Amino acid sequence: MMDIQQLDKKYVLPTYARADVEFVSGKNARLTDANGKEYIDFTSGIAVVSVGHGNERLTNALCEQTKKLIHMSNLYYTAPQALAAKKIVEASGYDMKCFFGNSGAEANEGAIKIARKYGEKDGVPKRYKIITLDHSFHGRTITTVKATGQESMHNYFGPFPDGFVYAKDIDEVESLLDDHTVAVMIELVQGEGGVQPQDKQKVQELVKLLQSKDILVIVDEVQTGVYRTGKFLASNLYEIEPDIISLAKGVGGGVPVGVVMTSKKDIFSPGDHGSTFGGNFLSTTAVCEVLDILNEYDASGALSDGIAYFDAALEKFYNNHTNLFTAKVGLGMMCGLRVKDSETLSAIIKNAQENGVMVLKAGRNTLRFLPPLTITKEEIDEGFKALESAVSKL
Amino acid sequence: MMDIQQLDKKYVLPTYARADVEFVSGKNARLTDANGKEYIDFTSGIAVVSVGHGNERLTNALCEQTKKLIHMSNLYYTAPQALAAKKIVEASGYDMKCFFGNSGAEANEGAIKIARKYGEKDGVPKRYKIITLDHSFHGRTITTVKATGQESMHNYFGPFPDGFVYAKDIDEVESLLDDHTVAVMIELVQGEGGVQPQDKQKVQELVKLLQSKDILVIVDEVQTGVYRTGKFLASNLYEIEPDIISLAKGVGGGVPVGVVMTSKKDIFSPGDHGSTFGGNFLSTTAVCEVLDILNEYDASGALSDGIAYFDAALEKFYNNHTNLFTAKVGLGMMCGLRVKDSETLSAIIKNAQENGVMVLKAGRNTLRFLPPLTITKEEIDEGFKALESAVSKL
Repeated sequence: MMDIQQLDKKYVLPTYARADVEFVSGKNARLTDANGKEYIDFTSGIAVVSVGHGNERLTNALCEQTKKLIHMSNLYYTAPQALAAKKIVEASGYDMKCFFGNSGAEANEGAIKIARKYGEKDGVPKRYKIITLDHSFHGRTITTVKATGQESMHNYFGPFPDGFVYAKDIDEVESLLDDHTVAVMIELVQGEGGVQPQDKQKVQELVKLLQSKDILVIVDEVQTGVYRTGKFLASNLYEIEPDIISLAKGVGGGVPVGVVMTSKKDIFSPGDHGSTFGGNFLSTTAVCEVLDILNEYDASGALSDGIAYFDAALEKFYNNHTNLFTAKVGLGMMCGLRVKDSETLSAIIKNAQENGVMVLKAGRNTLRFLPPLTITKEEIDEGFKALESAVSKL
Repeated sequence: MMDIQQLDKKYVLPTYARADVEFVSGKNARLTDANGKEYIDFTSGIAVVSVGHGNERLTNALCEQTKKLIHMSNLYYTAPQALAAKKIVEASGYDMKCFFGNSGAEANEGAIKIARKYGEKDGVPKRYKIITLDHSFHGRTITTVKATGQESMHNYFGPFPDGFVYAKDIDEVESLLDDHTVAVMIELVQGEGGVQPQDKQKVQELVKLLQSKDILVIVDEVQTGVYRTGKFLASNLYEIEPDIISLAKGVGGGVPVGVVMTSKKDIFSPGDHGSTFGGNFLSTTAVCEVLDILNEYDASGALSDGIAYFDAALEKFYNNHTNLFTAKVGLGMMCGLRVKDSETLSAIIKNAQENGVMVLKAGRNTLRFLPPLTITKEEIDEGFKALESAVSKL
């Protein structure tokens, strides 16, 4: 293990403050590190490993596909890409088409490109401004960094593209609309921003207002999508019909995939956008299998059972430690506890790791939980038992 | 097969003008389509499938890793990421560190971010301009589209970020330098721009000039990297030492991976840049195995044998058809033939597919060849035999 840390420090650019642990294998919500120590995983690699680690169905699907063909090219038809698009669109319930890239940032780049092209058509005066929210997170490309409503991220890498406007919150959006506004991009639960769900009625009213003005609604579902909030999309839960939706994280179960989908099905012509890897055999085979697994898991009732069980365990944990926590937040399997201060938060995360359960931070003071969607009741119990030990040592 | 085409048209955004073929399996440089028809692959999915389709070593490595762990998070150490970085740096011969993303576009975003941050430090007047070349291609994000020196790509998606300046060719770069120039970004062989290698001496002189002025040299090796030109990097072949290099396509053998590496090893601090999927277990396991395979293939002499054999076959084909072709261009396994006109080029590509060999287009009038690096002599012979049949029908 020391070896790997040294190699990492020697050969990898220091963009991450990594915790002192190296995992080597996993099974559903269980992880084993290089020293053989076991952990319950309440992170799923930041909402990525949606069907659990080492999922047998996903593993088999990927192995079988890898033997046949990993990648060819978007110059030709790719069966799993077409099938994955169909599965995504059908699960969403929206009348949309998909584009496949390789990350959440690429999905959001696609969303912004769709909106910008929409704002240019038919000789109408150009509309290009996109309103995003404070504390949002939309990615790490230069444009998605600028789309992110966190001023601290707008350093070093400029000139950034113009045209992004930040609203303090949903209430402020309307006052910022002008003749150049083409879209509003929101997360229904801000993941990095503190796991705070938006108010459903306010979102519905905003969507109604925007769509009445022909302003596009982009919902960034990179973290909320693919059953993370209990429905296939958080947009389904909020009962809205966005114009553009971005997906990534959980959609490939760990294989890099980003998807942007839109009801503006004719917005792009050949050559307007593209990706070499996007939608290839490997990544869209992953999407197909992940959606099959999760669609069944949802239909059987197991997903809502799991969510209810996790929520009850979190509620109990919260109530046991009102000296540490000030609020319980989130939706579905995307939840958090507000911690009284950031030192305590760091101490909890550190102690949790020592006690065999992995948890995350969001914003400055939120303890964040993003377990695999397929986490079992036993794993949930074990994880909270370890968390109890962790906080008892504070 | 009809089914898949219909699904694709119904559910996938129409960003590609796909040829009428759906591949279902492959073995090294052989492909089979949904009708059971076989092809020789002179495309490798646009230089991606570097170790051939269905490569057994890569397949086994991916299957084994997938059973253990596909993805965790960059919050923790990932052994194959550290190992992949070491292998890349060692193969390059440069004293650099790596960052892992998921595509060539993301690798180039990283390169631009490194250069921009370099231009900002120590209170020196801000330098941010990056010079790129006409006919270049650097990606499909809004910023890399703008970095691409093709005016036709600078539509629809603005406002684009300022700070990109286009040189007609290498000779023009010097006259465009000013106090705000922080970097020059070039491809040593422009892939999309017509497979035209840069002049080695001119490149060396430019690099010397730029580095004497503390202007960074970014080499976009997304297509040229990982032995495509016969050396690990085209930069090695040109005997230069760039400050920043981007890699993608062939580095993961078909798994989505992008890498940016730089000698500015301390440029980033934690939080400056990041990726959820980048460098995960699956993608960096692919990088490790691909590099092991190709390092051995190169060391054994098989790579240079293959390149020589391919080159001889191409030369012969070229000489047989001087009525169709005006020049032979390229380096290593990245080569092309200039076709007298674009109608003939389209006809050749179509006939080639009908005759069982897949070839590509570059620019407006170049027939492009990017075979798997592990293509065998038998496969090369078969491919050119099919090409002979294809052009005989023109």
